[in-house]
Amino acid sequence: MTSTPSNVAIVGSGLIGTSVAMAASRVGARVKTWDIDPAVARAAADRAGAKVAGSLGSCVGGADVVVVAAPISATPKLVAEALEASSDAVVTDVASVKSAVIDDVAGLAARGDLPRFVPGHPMGGSERSGPEHASASVIDAIVWVLTPAPNSDPDHVDRLEAWVGNLGARPVRMSPARHDRLVAFVSHLPQVASTALMGLAATEEAGEPELLLLAAGGFRDLTRLAASNPALWSQILLANGGAIAEAIDLYVERLNALREDVLAGRVEGIESKFAEAKEARLKLAAKPTVRAGVAVLQIVVPDRPGALAQLTAVLGEGGVNIEDLQIVHSPEGGRGTVHLTVAASDAASAAEILSSHAFDPTRLA
Amino acid sequence: MTSTPSNVAIVGSGLIGTSVAMAASRVGARVKTWDIDPAVARAAADRAGAKVAGSLGSCVGGADVVVVAAPISATPKLVAEALEASSDAVVTDVASVKSAVIDDVAGLAARGDLPRFVPGHPMGGSERSGPEHASASVIDAIVWVLTPAPNSDPDHVDRLEAWVGNLGARPVRMSPARHDRLVAFVSHLPQVASTALMGLAATEEAGEPELLLLAAGGFRDLTRLAASNPALWSQILLANGGAIAEAIDLYVERLNALREDVLAGRVEGIESKFAEAKEARLKLAAKPTVRAGVAVLQIVVPDRPGALAQLTAVLGEGGVNIEDLQIVHSPEGGRGTVHLTVAASDAASAAEILSSHAFDPTRLA
Repeated sequence: MTSTPSNVAIVGSGLIGTSVAMAASRVGARVKTWDIDPAVARAAADRAGAKVAGSLGSCVGGADVVVVAAPISATPKLVAEALEASSDAVVTDVASVKSAVIDDVAGLAARGDLPRFVPGHPMGGSERSGPEHASASVIDAIVWVLTPAPNSDPDHVDRLEAWVGNLGARPVRMSPARHDRLVAFVSHLPQVASTALMGLAATEEAGEPELLLLAAGGFRDLTRLAASNPALWSQILLANGGAIAEAIDLYVERLNALREDVLAGRVEGIESKFAEAKEARLKLAAKPTVRAGVAVLQIVVPDRPGALAQLTAVLGEGGVNIEDLQIVHSPEGGRGTVHLTVAASDAASAAEILSSHAFDPTRLA
Repeated sequence: MTSTPSNVAIVGSGLIGTSVAMAASRVGARVKTWDIDPAVARAAADRAGAKVAGSLGSCVGGADVVVVAAPISATPKLVAEALEASSDAVVTDVASVKSAVIDDVAGLAARGDLPRFVPGHPMGGSERSGPEHASASVIDAIVWVLTPAPNSDPDHVDRLEAWVGNLGARPVRMSPARHDRLVAFVSHLPQVASTALMGLAATEEAGEPELLLLAAGGFRDLTRLAASNPALWSQILLANGGAIAEAIDLYVERLNALREDVLAGRVEGIESKFAEAKEARLKLAAKPTVRAGVAVLQIVVPDRPGALAQLTAVLGEGGVNIEDLQIVHSPEGGRGTVHLTVAASDAASAAEILSSHAFDPTRLA
């Protein structure tokens, strides 16, 4: 196998699998797709300019790299089958929890095949699913975590890392336990926090029908994730239970510390905790590529068709890229406030463009 | 005093006070402004077409309605002074916590003046401050809660309610304790939850510098509020300590229940809690005016100047009003996903317009 494998097998033809197939085709690989549903595998193959395989065995036979892109519960068995049906391929997966998958694969696969399994987690995708929404651009510049298992052969890890970089993603190597612990804090805990808050408000609303009348933008931000898929999330939470329980414990500790400060009237305790969080949040950029230098502008826009279009149009004409845009409504509509994030180097020209078109921007950060 | 008072005194010339002054001028009232900073009072008067008063006494003397629009810690004393310096006026305030303000006013004001105090909380404003950012539109259609105190005269409550409605806001009457309990759930708890999550991630990041590299859109949504003003929030939390402690307790209970489900492997427990929250979140509209019928479309847009402009322009040209728009970035940029909320009755035409301009919308909800 060269550092840019020319034979790639994609097992599972959902959004991620098909997007990886398309990114591999883009760099000249010969790609085969397989899926438990032949029609889906065919759709993926058509979209990626790949060949469709009639079985998992014929998909992975002769491959240099196999990517298993299946739901987390189906992943270990497919990885084990792909290892058995291939001889030299490095086999990777895309599941969002790593330790549990690695343990299950170790119990299912032949010991001699384990060195070829290098687990991974591309941190991309979207809420859309299916090959019809796939795109090579889903892979562009995303963080693709590689979490070598105890038995992973270092040469295979190096090769997969080079291959991932060649596809256009950014490989980041870390241990499975560390990956699982970090995503527990930045992905799984936020989901749990959002679901718990929305569930609490829903219960309270049963006795207080006016509760959500008073809910403004902040409440909406905090509960947006609560609309996520219950079945998908129960799989993820169960597969990463230990790390999630630890994250919840630390979170509850912080909530209780603020509660104690409030009940004891400790102004300094509250202010220092809020100041720490504020500083950290201002450092967290809209996007990591511009972490060091973003600016946030606030603009009031009338709530009518075309108002937002004019705002975004004048910025586009002026060559200002919108890094992020958030509409913050008044509780009862009629008027919208937009929080616009641009690169700090664009802030002055964005403000000038907006002011010259009768918008009235205020720089918030 | 008629149902539309013609003499209005605004004590405090920040964003809210000045906006109320402008809304009162708009409906023909004679308005006087006063502020501890004479230059600010002058700016507010100029903006609202009001007269500036040289003292609090000359501001409120002869007024039919006095609105004290000051920071929460300064509010009780100013309310007591306004009651003392006026004879017939109904005096209201705008503080975001009511019971503590009512208690403090009762301790400071003459007993005979208390019937004229009718506490209130306009649920509007923005992160901007100062008279220069004020606008009568800040008051348009907002929920303006009135929380009669034990001593408030019902006639004064009725008059203030009519006056608030006449300004363009939507008066909602409830008890002080109920207001404080509800805002604890939908405003104060979300703030505490966001600050605690960001503080936890900041602490974890100290030992794990790659933590925030893995943080995607969900984490950003949950922590946006954490950038709020520490001094302002410590005042609010301390003034509503009991209700906030209760809300934190109930929230922690829910987090721990999910934690127990996860550790015990209870799939049904997790899924039912997620399903309850999902259902409630989908019912919570982008804006209450369209609560019963919004649709959310997801669209992938290239991350370059003008891309968002094209999307919003074609919708504006097609007469579709954008109720909400959220950019969901991939962790490393290069591509953006937009979640677009429109009235459900506009969903089909929005999708058609977008499709005919080479966007590829997917309806999420």
